[in-house]
Amino acid sequence: MNTKVQPSGLSALVSSPKFSNFILFCVFLNAIIIGMQTYPAINVTYASLFNKLDIVFLGVFTIEVILKIFVYRKNYFKDGWNIFDFIVVAASIAFLQSEFVSVLRILRVLRVLKTISSIRSLRRIITSLFMAVPTIGSISLLMVIVFYIYGVVGSTFFAELSPVYFGDLSASLVTLFQIATFDDWANIYRPIAESSPLSLIYFVTFIFIAVFVMLNLVVGEIVNNASNIPSDVVEDIAEIEKDVHDIRGVVLEVQQLKSEIMELKLLLMEESQQHKKSS
Amino acid sequence: MNTKVQPSGLSALVSSPKFSNFILFCVFLNAIIIGMQTYPAINVTYASLFNKLDIVFLGVFTIEVILKIFVYRKNYFKDGWNIFDFIVVAASIAFLQSEFVSVLRILRVLRVLKTISSIRSLRRIITSLFMAVPTIGSISLLMVIVFYIYGVVGSTFFAELSPVYFGDLSASLVTLFQIATFDDWANIYRPIAESSPLSLIYFVTFIFIAVFVMLNLVVGEIVNNASNIPSDVVEDIAEIEKDVHDIRGVVLEVQQLKSEIMELKLLLMEESQQHKKSS
Amino acid sequence: MNTKVQPSGLSALVSSPKFSNFILFCVFLNAIIIGMQTYPAINVTYASLFNKLDIVFLGVFTIEVILKIFVYRKNYFKDGWNIFDFIVVAASIAFLQSEFVSVLRILRVLRVLKTISSIRSLRRIITSLFMAVPTIGSISLLMVIVFYIYGVVGSTFFAELSPVYFGDLSASLVTLFQIATFDDWANIYRPIAESSPLSLIYFVTFIFIAVFVMLNLVVGEIVNNASNIPSDVVEDIAEIEKDVHDIRGVVLEVQQLKSEIMELKLLLMEESQQHKKSS
Amino acid sequence: MNTKVQPSGLSALVSSPKFSNFILFCVFLNAIIIGMQTYPAINVTYASLFNKLDIVFLGVFTIEVILKIFVYRKNYFKDGWNIFDFIVVAASIAFLQSEFVSVLRILRVLRVLKTISSIRSLRRIITSLFMAVPTIGSISLLMVIVFYIYGVVGSTFFAELSPVYFGDLSASLVTLFQIATFDDWANIYRPIAESSPLSLIYFVTFIFIAVFVMLNLVVGEIVNNASNIPSDVVEDIAEIEKDVHDIRGVVLEVQQLKSEIMELKLLLMEESQQHKKSS
Repeated sequence: MNTKVQPSGLSALVSSPKFSNFILFCVFLNAIIIGMQTYPAINVTYASLFNKLDIVFLGVFTIEVILKIFVYRKNYFKDGWNIFDFIVVAASIAFLQSEFVSVLRILRVLRVLKTISSIRSLRRIITSLFMAVPTIGSISLLMVIVFYIYGVVGSTFFAELSPVYFGDLSASLVTLFQIATFDDWANIYRPIAESSPLSLIYFVTFIFIAVFVMLNLVVGEIVNNASNIPSDVVEDIAEIEKDVHDIRGVVLEVQQLKSEIMELKLLLMEESQQHKKSS
Repeated sequence: MNTKVQPSGLSALVSSPKFSNFILFCVFLNAIIIGMQTYPAINVTYASLFNKLDIVFLGVFTIEVILKIFVYRKNYFKDGWNIFDFIVVAASIAFLQSEFVSVLRILRVLRVLKTISSIRSLRRIITSLFMAVPTIGSISLLMVIVFYIYGVVGSTFFAELSPVYFGDLSASLVTLFQIATFDDWANIYRPIAESSPLSLIYFVTFIFIAVFVMLNLVVGEIVNNASNIPSDVVEDIAEIEKDVHDIRGVVLEVQQLKSEIMELKLLLMEESQQHKKSS
Repeated sequence: MNTKVQPSGLSALVSSPKFSNFILFCVFLNAIIIGMQTYPAINVTYASLFNKLDIVFLGVFTIEVILKIFVYRKNYFKDGWNIFDFIVVAASIAFLQSEFVSVLRILRVLRVLKTISSIRSLRRIITSLFMAVPTIGSISLLMVIVFYIYGVVGSTFFAELSPVYFGDLSASLVTLFQIATFDDWANIYRPIAESSPLSLIYFVTFIFIAVFVMLNLVVGEIVNNASNIPSDVVEDIAEIEKDVHDIRGVVLEVQQLKSEIMELKLLLMEESQQHKKSS
Repeated sequence: MNTKVQPSGLSALVSSPKFSNFILFCVFLNAIIIGMQTYPAINVTYASLFNKLDIVFLGVFTIEVILKIFVYRKNYFKDGWNIFDFIVVAASIAFLQSEFVSVLRILRVLRVLKTISSIRSLRRIITSLFMAVPTIGSISLLMVIVFYIYGVVGSTFFAELSPVYFGDLSASLVTLFQIATFDDWANIYRPIAESSPLSLIYFVTFIFIAVFVMLNLVVGEIVNNASNIPSDVVEDIAEIEKDVHDIRGVVLEVQQLKSEIMELKLLLMEESQQHKKSS
């Protein structure tokens, strides 16, 4: 932290647990009020109170953003979560008097998302979940192509039989997603099967492919994660291997020692005999 | 056990397998009768018999509690399962003549729960399942927030389109739980999608997040459990590593030996030459 | 095999691959015909042909049983699969002229089961699947108790609200099984929830417990199987550990050698000095 | 590659990334147009444009096939993906003026499948997925037999009660597949259960077997994959074991050294005494 640039009192305040707990408390309170506003009866009765509280919370979040920018300066915008907070607060102020109801609704919801940015352990989970995305990259691409192909096939052959489910490519894709979750697929299949018995192949192969690919995703994820654990073991074993290899050198050294001691013995015996002779 | 304080006969009785088997037998019999009482035809015919048996079983469980308190004294209340037994029996006696039907029903059901407290292996499983709960703590918190956010979004945007499923926050949360189990979600989605095509994003992202988080839970659990197994291996390898490290010292020692033997040889040869000279 | 007692020709025939392949071929043919008999149109047209073929196949299977008993004698009945074959054939002959249609139907189906007893790899899978059953014993017992408790609770509180699903204990148990498979549970829940909002707790806790226990079953199974693999590794490491321990002895020996060589050197130097003096 | 036979310029062109990226671009564009043709409104408006583009793309793919055959000659047909490309292009040309709408539709869809043959990482995934098929061989055979047996039982006992779901063997097999995916099984079961309560055994055992076998498939797949990872570890440990075994030889050698040094000492002491005597 930038303690040189800022008065240390303000910097200490912003980075203190009390400050972040207070913000977290406001975020939760705001989320609860947003939740209560979804109940029409409650919303009508307390409308003006809710509006006032909304402005209070917006004020708190605005002060939080200003203080943090003031303390961290450029570093503030290096953190994606801070940027998220900044945009939500800035947009909330910009549209404060707006008549666009849906924009206000979205901003209200985004403020609930602040719960995630306010709890450190959740930020870490989210980051680690995003990290897991690329590992499932090429299998997702395959899944997209499988969906596309089955979508084209479905809307090519079943569009007239079942316009609701296979009317066009987008309808087919939704239906395929539904089939992939096993939700009520048989009720889609049976009416089609009556006039097109070969549709069985379409449905069964799609379910098998979807399950098989999902299975491979799960297995891949498990194996990926499981392989992280014994990485220490692998490293340890590699080190042991190196050590043991070095130690093997001892065998040679000891054998050299042996032959040298043999020489010594011979020398001694020789000398001893000379001695005897000389004596 | 407190054999000093209590007559050893009673203590032996309470802690004997025969006693606990008899209690277990009564618990099972009571559970079967409670199950039979759910059949209206049977319940009407044997109502008085069932009531009498109920009082007999309550008597048995009361005696069990009294005997155990008498034997274990203060230690009795240190075990959560004993406290559970005590409360069930005490409440059953307190409400014996009560007119509150629903209270009596709940107590009747709680007595079936005694089957778990009576079988040791089940008590252990329950304990170990509870142990697993904290490890899934922060991901559950994330799930709660995801549900809350999607609940607020759902009741904000779809409340008018689908009041049964998204009328208010609690209705939305139930619907989201239903969607997370893939139960009939497409029949909720399709009517909404007709007037609000963007709802596709809502449903698909929610399903993906729910599946992805569930997947991570399962994988985490598996990896957690799997990592317990090779912990011995890890320890063994650490010990081997230490040993091998110690042994590496031998290399140095043997090299020292070598140089010292070399010195010895030189000394001997020198002496031998002196000898020859002297002789 | 009992080649002493039996003529080796018959014994060789019964245990030859050709014989078992012929039986397997008959089993498959019989299974196909039994399958075709489920199509009313085909069954009516070829009824007499099917009946004749049925008797032919029964004859083949009878001869198989007789030959095998003749060859293996007492050992024949030591194999569960042989006993199964024997009972199916004996019962089929006994009820050949029977009028009990349902008994004939069951026997017809059991003959399809012979496909499993005829293929060795399938017999092994079945055996290994049966082996896996006890390992899931206590968690199944817990599941039974959970179902029983929820069944009693369900038929106690929801019997009047939803007699089809929770009318009595057996109806409740079927409904709970349905809920555990996530099949259409929300359509059971919603009508009940209207008059009994607390039923949410019942449904949600049951789903969580069912999923959690299932998850633990799966994880347990995986961990059980996964732990079998590195058992060789564990053994290898134990052996290395023992070896390394033995080798550690070398360190001590080498240190002793060192001190002895030191002594030698002193002796030599002493002698050398004496020599010099003497010379 | 066959650079000797072909002018190196053409060979370099065909195997250049630019060439394959251009083909991939055409495949994607073609796939998007095929997808757009599933929307009736779009298809009618741009019909002639789509037809012209179709011929352009077919021309591009034809040139690709010709160039590749020209460059790789016999080797071209050794790759299954090339054969697939060749058949699709050849059939598309052969049926270009055909009146068989369904053939044209299938060819149009097959051209979307070219996306997989054009992306290397997908070809690898497909190959590895096909590799996984045989490992699940015997359990699939068991599943087929289980389905067949339950199919015969279902159509034997429930054909009259529920002709839609169990009318004949093929209807039963589809219904069993539906039950295995937990899709709406309870709504199939309940009407049957009213007149045939024993059907509960049929449904519950089938669900248990299906789940159990699926579980074993998943577990098997995981364990198979998981066992691949620590194979390096196993090899490393085997090597360490060998090394450690060799090193054990040192123990013996060092002991020999010790005894020899002892001998040396005795010799020296002896000589020293002789010396003293002699002096």
